[in-house]
Amino acid sequence: MQALWLEHQQLNYYPNLPPPKPLAGEALVRVLVAGICTTDLELLKGYYPFNGILGHEFVGEIVEATAAPQRVGQRVVGEINIACGHCRYCQRGWPTHCEQRATLGIANRNGAFAEYLGLPLNNLIPVPATVSNEAAVFTEPLAAALQIQQQMSIRPTDQVLVIGAGRLGQLIAQTLTLTGCHLQVVARYPKQRQLLATRQIPWLAENQVTDNRFDLVVEATGTSSGFTLAQQAVRPRGTIILKSTYAGSEIPVNFSSLVVAEITVIGCRCGPFAPALRLLEQHLVEPTILIEDRFPLAEGIRAFECAKQAGALKILLV
Amino acid sequence: MQALWLEHQQLNYYPNLPPPKPLAGEALVRVLVAGICTTDLELLKGYYPFNGILGHEFVGEIVEATAAPQRVGQRVVGEINIACGHCRYCQRGWPTHCEQRATLGIANRNGAFAEYLGLPLNNLIPVPATVSNEAAVFTEPLAAALQIQQQMSIRPTDQVLVIGAGRLGQLIAQTLTLTGCHLQVVARYPKQRQLLATRQIPWLAENQVTDNRFDLVVEATGTSSGFTLAQQAVRPRGTIILKSTYAGSEIPVNFSSLVVAEITVIGCRCGPFAPALRLLEQHLVEPTILIEDRFPLAEGIRAFECAKQAGALKILLV
Repeated sequence: MQALWLEHQQLNYYPNLPPPKPLAGEALVRVLVAGICTTDLELLKGYYPFNGILGHEFVGEIVEATAAPQRVGQRVVGEINIACGHCRYCQRGWPTHCEQRATLGIANRNGAFAEYLGLPLNNLIPVPATVSNEAAVFTEPLAAALQIQQQMSIRPTDQVLVIGAGRLGQLIAQTLTLTGCHLQVVARYPKQRQLLATRQIPWLAENQVTDNRFDLVVEATGTSSGFTLAQQAVRPRGTIILKSTYAGSEIPVNFSSLVVAEITVIGCRCGPFAPALRLLEQHLVEPTILIEDRFPLAEGIRAFECAKQAGALKILLV
Repeated sequence: MQALWLEHQQLNYYPNLPPPKPLAGEALVRVLVAGICTTDLELLKGYYPFNGILGHEFVGEIVEATAAPQRVGQRVVGEINIACGHCRYCQRGWPTHCEQRATLGIANRNGAFAEYLGLPLNNLIPVPATVSNEAAVFTEPLAAALQIQQQMSIRPTDQVLVIGAGRLGQLIAQTLTLTGCHLQVVARYPKQRQLLATRQIPWLAENQVTDNRFDLVVEATGTSSGFTLAQQAVRPRGTIILKSTYAGSEIPVNFSSLVVAEITVIGCRCGPFAPALRLLEQHLVEPTILIEDRFPLAEGIRAFECAKQAGALKILLV
């Protein structure tokens, strides 16, 4: 099969790799559409020492499922953490923190930038018929956006700032508006601002952010300067959510101001798929407006070049 | 009056300063006992550009109170934040975050290392007769320790680690044991370990800390290495409380591990005095075992030299 294989931070296209062999309880899935995410770009820079097929955002079709033959033909999205089911975190109902976990296209498991992938049947969630492939491919990042609301309650009266209006920032903004909160989004690029405007979401420039104002600040740039701005913008006893991939070295933090203002900082990763699919089905979010371009797998290297451009939105592999 | 005056990070003893003149609604308080805290030591190193009389931990007696003459003679401790009562944080019931606040011996208000101090009557809380001066002088740091339980709920089944067993770490340990949690304290110095042992609180060395174990880790060293240890010790979705004075420059933080493990970091500062006094009155905490030495104000410079020693516990000015 065709696939994009990462080896020592070098991405290669292979036209003829063997397809994965599903283990017991797993299914073979034909990938219909896959999306390139910032984590993929960071893996190319060495964020995590992964060698194998990249990609974790996908929608596909089950083509082989020995343990559940009735599911063959089902259109599915996939929870990317493959959990052991036995460790203390799995027993607690937190499979995304499984001590033995593999993660699709990120750690110990080949990913979705291929014609086929293998995942446990438990990870595969049917896509409602009314949700298109190009909407369903956003389920994983949309779930990650919803993890904010999973970790803390957002009140309709809250003043909320999202810093960063890229691929994930836009989805965060779309889901946060559903809370009724007073939302503003720091957006740097014209097309990011346009997209927000089409959803009636107020955007502003970095230098327009009011200090000590916001109950909640979502840092979605993955940068040191983004966190500095978050610290300025958050009010005393407010919360900063870290909602990005922070690659590279450590970020310097002014602990004194965290303590004096009694700020809460919350790291936030993978989220729940079922509510993401519900929002897609009900058209309460519209991720397809983020699609910037589509490439066949064979042009995957070029697709990555596009995704790397500053301000680039979603690039799909079809 | 005698006082210890900080000027450009230089501490001086003055035998003959004028006593403070209380403003409307304020009282003049004769200081009976005052305590030296890590924040005082950090102010000497330039943590905050304060010039004036140092000191914020005290017990005293009201000697003048025009607005409430019946309170003259009352033995009191004092909430150190002098709030405006009008700003959005005061209106929210958060005077410790008042936008206009002065802070006794820390910012815009002369402090307690003197024969007299002035504070608003509202800040002055009567000390129960059964609580000695040498216990009452710990009310402020004890309140700061209790701010942890004010900011988050600690469950009796929680595994809790306190990193640092100095002046504040010991008080934190004493209050956390009251929750019934499974508590361990990282203590470096023999006398710190002894003190914990007298309260049947388990201590351990840094290299004995189990990774990814603790539901809650309280960082009470104010150091970068303390935070690194906290990040190692906390379990996925656990909480790190920053409970110290973080002076100097910024601390490098591995954001990636905060996000991947979905850690919550909470800055924690001043706490509630009333519960601190209740615990003292009920002998549920015993801070006086921390007293290392006592000096008259006139020997304040020498008292500070003692307080600076590694592993030093509480030094009182009497």
